[in-house]
Amino acid sequence: MLREFAAEREWEPFHTPKNLAMAVSGEAGELAAELQWSTPEESNELDAAARERVADEMADVLHYLVRMADVLDIDLIAAAMDKLARNRERFPVGEPETRRARPRR
Amino acid sequence: MLREFAAEREWEPFHTPKNLAMAVSGEAGELAAELQWSTPEESNELDAAARERVADEMADVLHYLVRMADVLDIDLIAAAMDKLARNRERFPVGEPETRRARPRR
Amino acid sequence: MLREFAAEREWEPFHTPKNLAMAVSGEAGELAAELQWSTPEESNELDAAARERVADEMADVLHYLVRMADVLDIDLIAAAMDKLARNRERFPVGEPETRRARPRR
Amino acid sequence: MLREFAAEREWEPFHTPKNLAMAVSGEAGELAAELQWSTPEESNELDAAARERVADEMADVLHYLVRMADVLDIDLIAAAMDKLARNRERFPVGEPETRRARPRR
Repeated sequence: MLREFAAEREWEPFHTPKNLAMAVSGEAGELAAELQWSTPEESNELDAAARERVADEMADVLHYLVRMADVLDIDLIAAAMDKLARNRERFPVGEPETRRARPRR
Repeated sequence: MLREFAAEREWEPFHTPKNLAMAVSGEAGELAAELQWSTPEESNELDAAARERVADEMADVLHYLVRMADVLDIDLIAAAMDKLARNRERFPVGEPETRRARPRR
Repeated sequence: MLREFAAEREWEPFHTPKNLAMAVSGEAGELAAELQWSTPEESNELDAAARERVADEMADVLHYLVRMADVLDIDLIAAAMDKLARNRERFPVGEPETRRARPRR
Repeated sequence: MLREFAAEREWEPFHTPKNLAMAVSGEAGELAAELQWSTPEESNELDAAARERVADEMADVLHYLVRMADVLDIDLIAAAMDKLARNRERFPVGEPETRRARPRR
């Protein structure tokens, strides 16, 4: 649907992976901006209007991410599953380090 | 799976919407960094190693985005479909403005 | 100094405003990542190692921002003073709205 | 000036390092968004209106970065000079690798 959306509007020339990575980054910045002055606790109790703004920004991030995967012919779900499998090995359950550790990149 | 992954490692207390929005933003920054010195054309012709690094960063963005949707109980696919419907109206096909216009936020 | 640093290494062709904006964004993402799992309170009491990592990422953001200003021939200090003047008018001191309001973009 | 600006508006409680890092990231995202559909060449030839929007976003990034340095009591210029010195050693002038290498994080 996103491919068709772009094609119908003749936006394909703009949708290079580089440009789409910038767009993902821009939308992620807007998502962060929505919650920048909230406490972590407040971010758990958003009112309806804030929730909708947040959902909207999340949708924008997903759009550009999926469109980027399409342009690059990357299977995003497979990539996510593969990364999860590696993260399981990197952070073994029950290991003191994993338990104590805060998740790090 | 991501919910279970976090629970097993006792990372749930860190996964507030605010913190996850920062994580999405951090991973989106890493994704941008992968392509920052490429030309748009080069970003269309990544070699296998670069493609894998890019796919990896895209997976990280998706993980945190999906985990954030889970924590907020937001239906991410519904939000994306809803936003797409509004974008269709905002940028009508064939309108001179849409055709000429570069996509803007 | 940053101009010379880039010229000596023959990196000037890569330093377009677009690429430098991506680099600012990438480094800002790394800065966010440093504090993503901290509480706001903890971020006020960083230990020496964390402070150094944060200072390092802040330096990276500043480098690319200043380099971008140089390439665009934008007077960054003047731009910042100008924006501050406008923000003073936008958020008048003592107005109930400003006082109650959380800063928003 | 930024310290005073925040104090006058009673915004200090919101200006934790964590929140300010999110704000830097958010503004960096907006900066990226300004140039996301431009080619690198076009970003070198911005018209007056685009230049002003870009300068404005750069000012926002600088504001939050300087405010963050103030709150953390980090000497941002010293940090930038220190990082530049390390980057000089990391990328020696005239080394084939540096010359060929595209700058990487």
